Amino acid sequence: MDSPVHRVSLGDTWSRRVHPDMASERFIQSFSVEQLTNILDGGAQNTALRRKVESIIHSDPEFSVKDNYFMTQNERYVAAVQKRFHLQIIAKRLGWSENSPEFYYAYRYSLPGQPQRYQGPCLWWATPAPCPFPHRALSGELALGLHTVFLKSLQSLGSEEQIAKWTPLCNEFRIIASYAQTELGHGTNLRGLETEATYDAATQEFVVHSPTLTATKWWPGDMGRSATHTLVQAQLICSGARQGMHAFIVPIRSLRDHTPLPGVTVGDIGPKMDFDNIDHGFLRLDHVRIPRENMLSRFAQVLPDGTYVKLGTQQTNYFSMVVVRVELLLGEIIPLLQKACVIAIRYSVIRRQSSIRPSDPEAKILDYQTQQQKLLPQLATAYAFHFLASNLLKFLHSSYDAIRNKDFSHLPELHALSAGIKAMTSDLCFQGSELCRRACGGHGYSKLSGLPSLVTRVTASCTYEGDNTVLYLQTARFLVKNYLQTQAIPGSTQKSLPPSVAYLTAPYLARCPAQKAADFLHPKLYTTAWAHVAARLIKYSAHHLETLIRSGVDWAEAWNQTTVIHLQTAKAHCYYISVKSFTETLEKLEDKPAVRQVLKRLCDLYALHGILTNAADFLHDGFLSGAQVDAVRTGYLELLGLVRKDAILLTDAFDFTDPSLNSALGCYDGNVYERLFHWAQKSPTNTQENPAYAKYLRPLLQSWKSKL
Amino acid sequence: MDSPVHRVSLGDTWSRRVHPDMASERFIQSFSVEQLTNILDGGAQNTALRRKVESIIHSDPEFSVKDNYFMTQNERYVAAVQKRFHLQIIAKRLGWSENSPEFYYAYRYSLPGQPQRYQGPCLWWATPAPCPFPHRALSGELALGLHTVFLKSLQSLGSEEQIAKWTPLCNEFRIIASYAQTELGHGTNLRGLETEATYDAATQEFVVHSPTLTATKWWPGDMGRSATHTLVQAQLICSGARQGMHAFIVPIRSLRDHTPLPGVTVGDIGPKMDFDNIDHGFLRLDHVRIPRENMLSRFAQVLPDGTYVKLGTQQTNYFSMVVVRVELLLGEIIPLLQKACVIAIRYSVIRRQSSIRPSDPEAKILDYQTQQQKLLPQLATAYAFHFLASNLLKFLHSSYDAIRNKDFSHLPELHALSAGIKAMTSDLCFQGSELCRRACGGHGYSKLSGLPSLVTRVTASCTYEGDNTVLYLQTARFLVKNYLQTQAIPGSTQKSLPPSVAYLTAPYLARCPAQKAADFLHPKLYTTAWAHVAARLIKYSAHHLETLIRSGVDWAEAWNQTTVIHLQTAKAHCYYISVKSFTETLEKLEDKPAVRQVLKRLCDLYALHGILTNAADFLHDGFLSGAQVDAVRTGYLELLGLVRKDAILLTDAFDFTDPSLNSALGCYDGNVYERLFHWAQKSPTNTQENPAYAKYLRPLLQSWKSKL
Repeated sequence: MDSPVHRVSLGDTWSRRVHPDMASERFIQSFSVEQLTNILDGGAQNTALRRKVESIIHSDPEFSVKDNYFMTQNERYVAAVQKRFHLQIIAKRLGWSENSPEFYYAYRYSLPGQPQRYQGPCLWWATPAPCPFPHRALSGELALGLHTVFLKSLQSLGSEEQIAKWTPLCNEFRIIASYAQTELGHGTNLRGLETEATYDAATQEFVVHSPTLTATKWWPGDMGRSATHTLVQAQLICSGARQGMHAFIVPIRSLRDHTPLPGVTVGDIGPKMDFDNIDHGFLRLDHVRIPRENMLSRFAQVLPDGTYVKLGTQQTNYFSMVVVRVELLLGEIIPLLQKACVIAIRYSVIRRQSSIRPSDPEAKILDYQTQQQKLLPQLATAYAFHFLASNLLKFLHSSYDAIRNKDFSHLPELHALSAGIKAMTSDLCFQGSELCRRACGGHGYSKLSGLPSLVTRVTASCTYEGDNTVLYLQTARFLVKNYLQTQAIPGSTQKSLPPSVAYLTAPYLARCPAQKAADFLHPKLYTTAWAHVAARLIKYSAHHLETLIRSGVDWAEAWNQTTVIHLQTAKAHCYYISVKSFTETLEKLEDKPAVRQVLKRLCDLYALHGILTNAADFLHDGFLSGAQVDAVRTGYLELLGLVRKDAILLTDAFDFTDPSLNSALGCYDGNVYERLFHWAQKSPTNTQENPAYAKYLRPLLQSWKSKL
Repeated sequence: MDSPVHRVSLGDTWSRRVHPDMASERFIQSFSVEQLTNILDGGAQNTALRRKVESIIHSDPEFSVKDNYFMTQNERYVAAVQKRFHLQIIAKRLGWSENSPEFYYAYRYSLPGQPQRYQGPCLWWATPAPCPFPHRALSGELALGLHTVFLKSLQSLGSEEQIAKWTPLCNEFRIIASYAQTELGHGTNLRGLETEATYDAATQEFVVHSPTLTATKWWPGDMGRSATHTLVQAQLICSGARQGMHAFIVPIRSLRDHTPLPGVTVGDIGPKMDFDNIDHGFLRLDHVRIPRENMLSRFAQVLPDGTYVKLGTQQTNYFSMVVVRVELLLGEIIPLLQKACVIAIRYSVIRRQSSIRPSDPEAKILDYQTQQQKLLPQLATAYAFHFLASNLLKFLHSSYDAIRNKDFSHLPELHALSAGIKAMTSDLCFQGSELCRRACGGHGYSKLSGLPSLVTRVTASCTYEGDNTVLYLQTARFLVKNYLQTQAIPGSTQKSLPPSVAYLTAPYLARCPAQKAADFLHPKLYTTAWAHVAARLIKYSAHHLETLIRSGVDWAEAWNQTTVIHLQTAKAHCYYISVKSFTETLEKLEDKPAVRQVLKRLCDLYALHGILTNAADFLHDGFLSGAQVDAVRTGYLELLGLVRKDAILLTDAFDFTDPSLNSALGCYDGNVYERLFHWAQKSPTNTQENPAYAKYLRPLLQSWKSKL
């Protein structure tokens, strides 16, 4: 792993020289790249372990993803199934237990530095089992991730007997399981799901049924072509009463020949923007009968006679959504932006186009101010989000420790933070990836650049695990609630508020004291500025809501009429949180001054970029004047120049060692054009006969010949 | 064409009832949809003709695109070649000459209402030949568009003899031609192209050669697998001197068996984000010899002895880029946003999810304020851009009339407008389409919704025909130049400035006089506000540039250091132009008060949406106060409610009659779920055997059986 040229081979031999335009970028090392990589990994030991695991995976041809861009939906699905099974074999051979840090790194979805954490009792959400979104080491090209979601749900919602019965069947892949919740007609509103499970006491069975077209289950992963069983979320009806959503294990395909069982209509939902590796499915159930024991019964049970018995509340189920959202950040969403930055920035120092002065040679496009303005704030964002997600994961862990001591007090804050941060990161990672893609011009439109797939994949994260608008509004409700609480109890102190909204009671500052550009490069100053804006917007949106209610509008309607403002408020709050998180990370780096300096510049850039993008929020009440915004811009443009010098090293620090970076433009050695050409030549369109020739083109050209 | 249900059939039989949630949207017709359609088409006669042509195309199974989403790159390419040839056959059979309005509508890229315009002499850019981006009637699923670009270039750059020789070969498809300009290493900087054509007087041939890897031609359409000839842009070298870029006709594939000719390496550049229908190619030439006559020689000639003779300047070649950019707007870019609006808005009145009040039934999602905020400004933008592009096309025509009278004075303004407007429309059409896609939640991620393809297609337009950043900066140069001119000549009047920048000398208004929300709903008021902001930014960026130059920075470096501000300036200017264009369109509708009212609301919404999105620019110098911005928001939110009432009718007015709207969600009758389900079932993944089953899944499940 020491030879840098080795690190991003596409599995082919290249001229082994590093492109001189790339080499020159690494000539002056103003900080230790390795030290920064260790910080991102959470320690040098973790870096070493991660590299060991990644090198095993990347040297194994069975895990190769280099032909992905040439595959049909079918082929990608098959390859993903193959990789999934191969990983099981490798893990067994190397003795990677499901609790081992090696297994973590193979999937790479946990907090860097925390892989050894979960050694305790088997809590479903803490089980270090494969995440359905394992982007780093395997580029997300695995199938059967929902098998794990089934298993997690079983362990969370099932009785001890049910867990004992089904877990080994899953672990040994004797069944292939899926999780079926979303329907054709319902996603966000879970209570509106239409699938019914009616208890028949005569046979002690549930009759699971899709009463309408819109009740068709739609989108469950691994269900389209693979699963033999699925966990169906359905409306329980027993003794004539509707008891709400419950989970039922429904066999859907024959274990003998894999054909759909009687009453089951199941299939693939067809072509999508991406995720061809997963067979998302549909499922219609026509009065399918399952035994009474197939209802997961940790929290509720139906007795043989049809009596419904509640056994507790599903506190952990509510918590589970939070966990998935937090895991997604480092497991899938943020690495996609990081990769996009790596690709676009490396390309931008190899690509030379036009010249700044007519007499000069062509310039590296990264030397154009507009290119810097596109890419470098994205790089800063990629770092900011890494630290934000790491800190959020720490908060999740401490909340979990509290929960084990029966202290549920952090849950509302954790929920609000995870919702808003998932929304913000997916929104901005999408925007940033697309910006990176377009910053590579025509080559960015080629799939071989690696960029289109990152974009079409990350945009999905704005929708799954909670639509971003819905999530932001959940954060907004938390903000309004806390604000109203400060109003209700005069003299309430900071202490009574959750830490993330403590700024609501901070001393009021009417005007920002900074005057010139340099004044703005202070973490305390811009964190305060962001807090000011977030607090003002929270107050504004809460007052707006109250005014409407006082004018006679009912609460629900008043909320709907103010959602546009609440949305803006939640965004400002989340940005504040991310700036604060970055500055707190800096504080811990006092002993590493060189790395601290380069990260400080990224932090400044992130904060100032945010201020300029949202300048209206700062100008609105005169907190900043027009002249101050101009000073922010001056500081911002100077930062672009400074960060540009370290840009390549900052992409190196992410240490994507995988050929599955799978990109011609993002190669470590900068031999961009060599790879593009080589790779395009391998396209099946070049290795296969032209199918249009015989049928259309030849007759045409023959007709010409006949006239000669 | 009268039965509305007929209009968006996907070629299948549906339950013929209109969905009640859709029917209720059309119950109150506050304006005549037909009248608005006629306005968009430029007259009722045009509407009738367009419908006639579209109905011929859509009733012909050879033109069906309903299986597109299930096709491989290869299959889409073959289908596009097939459609291209079928269209020739249809045109011949129905007597649609190349100058006929029918031919226009089949391709639909011209100004509505102007199809009969080009009847004059054959001017290459005015030739009503197929545009390479024919989106409306045929959903852009054609191949061999570059054949036409070859023909246009030939007619523009070739001598009379050359035109006479090659035109019939093209017209009768005796050769298949392409146009090769962009290289692996060069796109924007045309002068940097590396391909060489060296004249050899001994044989009277040009030796066309790719001296480096980066000289490889990259991206030419139709070249990857189809073309027999291509027009190569190369550096001319004769008598030892480099004479710059010239165009050469180079045969690349055998007319006998279609194999690459000696010295030619040609192929497809591989998978892209979209445009699978086109075989974009690469081309390497190894000392390929072509006769002297193959250099297009209208403006320059190489005599047999190698003497280089200049015959004039390529005024029209410069003009040609402008024409293509203007044609693209209505031919490709804007219809993509219009379709995205149609799909997302129609879906949003069928989709019911959650309820506004807990006791209410589930609400149409278009009744949520956040959904309105996403979609309705996009609808307003789609209308605004239609009128903007129509007005720009009119300006193009009048400029052309002037050019014929040797008056080239409009060219700089036309160039600046076409550059900036292409950049703005492609930027915002991309953003809007993606917003529409995400507003449809999970279904928007399915290709069957129709939305992913619109997004992946429109994003390409931000890059081709000039990268948007480069184009905006060309507009910015025009703005700075004109501003400096007003400063150089004190007392210069509006008369001396091109009309689009006349506002630079308008009376200065320090504060916006509007106070309450209703005050902002006046075209004159918000047009003035936009002019104020654009003028302030132009002055600011020009002064910034001058300050730097006065401080000793040379012009080129000073320009690079101010491009971020110039970019912002150009955007504001273009938005001002678009607002002004919309208001001018309204002025012509005095005799149609109902249609005018609904368009006036869209115009207000477009202008106010722009102000809110760019509020910092209005707050910066105190032109608007924070309270005034709040009033703008109040007005904006009220407009959302008003436009929402007419939203479905406004999508109907676009009158996309084609099954090639090709979308389950955008269907006219609103039977969204029925189509999604029906269509997914037809996916090859459901009609073919599961390829992973025999290899991976069965052995697994068998191993389980063996343990029983």
